[in-house]
Amino acid sequence: MKLYDRQGTPNAARVRIVLAAKGLDEVVEIVQVDLVAAEQKQDWFLAMNPIGKTPVLLLDDGLALSESPAITEYLDNLDGNPVLTGRTPREKGLIHMMQRRVEIMLLDPVDDYFHYGTRGLGEALRPWRMPEWDAAEKKAWGERRGALAVANLPYFDGALRERPFLAGDFFSLADISLWAGLVFLTGAGLPIAPELTALAAWKAKVDDLPAVRNRTGQNF
Amino acid sequence: MKLYDRQGTPNAARVRIVLAAKGLDEVVEIVQVDLVAAEQKQDWFLAMNPIGKTPVLLLDDGLALSESPAITEYLDNLDGNPVLTGRTPREKGLIHMMQRRVEIMLLDPVDDYFHYGTRGLGEALRPWRMPEWDAAEKKAWGERRGALAVANLPYFDGALRERPFLAGDFFSLADISLWAGLVFLTGAGLPIAPELTALAAWKAKVDDLPAVRNRTGQNF
Repeated sequence: MKLYDRQGTPNAARVRIVLAAKGLDEVVEIVQVDLVAAEQKQDWFLAMNPIGKTPVLLLDDGLALSESPAITEYLDNLDGNPVLTGRTPREKGLIHMMQRRVEIMLLDPVDDYFHYGTRGLGEALRPWRMPEWDAAEKKAWGERRGALAVANLPYFDGALRERPFLAGDFFSLADISLWAGLVFLTGAGLPIAPELTALAAWKAKVDDLPAVRNRTGQNF
Repeated sequence: MKLYDRQGTPNAARVRIVLAAKGLDEVVEIVQVDLVAAEQKQDWFLAMNPIGKTPVLLLDDGLALSESPAITEYLDNLDGNPVLTGRTPREKGLIHMMQRRVEIMLLDPVDDYFHYGTRGLGEALRPWRMPEWDAAEKKAWGERRGALAVANLPYFDGALRERPFLAGDFFSLADISLWAGLVFLTGAGLPIAPELTALAAWKAKVDDLPAVRNRTGQNF
């Protein structure tokens, strides 16, 4: 298998944590994609993922899997022992719901903040960043989206006051998405309010998990 | 179990097709939510789903599940025989990827077109529809998003030239999402180009599946 991603991005971390948690680092060859040069928008990459985003996991049979939760479903079930996506119907439903809430409420708005409210990845990606808008419109949109992500953090803090991990008693795909979302948010310069102590305690706990600490290319 | 949704919406159809496919119509009580009156944005509903969208499946143990794919994971696995979300790791990954592509490339942009580019659901929902924008900005955004959905249709047509269903040889969650996306798109007044014949043939075939044809409240 080949993993096309870019070290240092939140979406690369999401899949690399899965690889570490499942003991699969050694069987996957990582191919770094130059996001600043917009390689992910070139034809060879779009043939694997028409949405033009990393990561993509290219299987040995030629199937190119994209979307971190879909890649996680694949990797987590390879050994018949899914530890990240749930064993029971209730676990599966809850994990998928919570990880999707993280995307809608945190990862997607932070992504918009990063690409519109800050300099983002620079010039080469401009044609894919709402060319109809002028600089002020882009900045306003990005800042609104960043503010939304920050305003949504208390929801996750509240959930983590009720249970040790985001979707229950064990570390799952939902936690991986939330961890990546928080890293992205602070990396983009947005704040986590000091009163969100359950969120901070959970973050420190997850930082220290072997799958997070020892993932390939761990650099934040 | 109780299902909170609104008959006639694409997301209600997504879960009702799952219920029909799994033979679960009889065990679920449907509670209709008045979307036009913005019931889904009221506190009692937000306590179940902070994102403020239907459908929500309320389990007998009190867990409120939202997000159609998460609800589908739950319902499809209840009998230990998942027919919609995949049995093998490869099937699971491919189905989740394709259904997510449908959301990103079709359902989400059509939703924006409906709510911004047309009258949408009307006055009561205005406070949740980008109040910072004036009418012209909203319309421009909605129309751009609608055009994007239309421009993405050839991708799905191409995929359906290669295989009988969107994620392989059998009807799955990915097809349910695509079917709902096409119904939403045409219902909102957007066109499907006549040359997309594989997409049209697939749509006619899915229209005729028992789970689609016989779902509760079938009205489109």
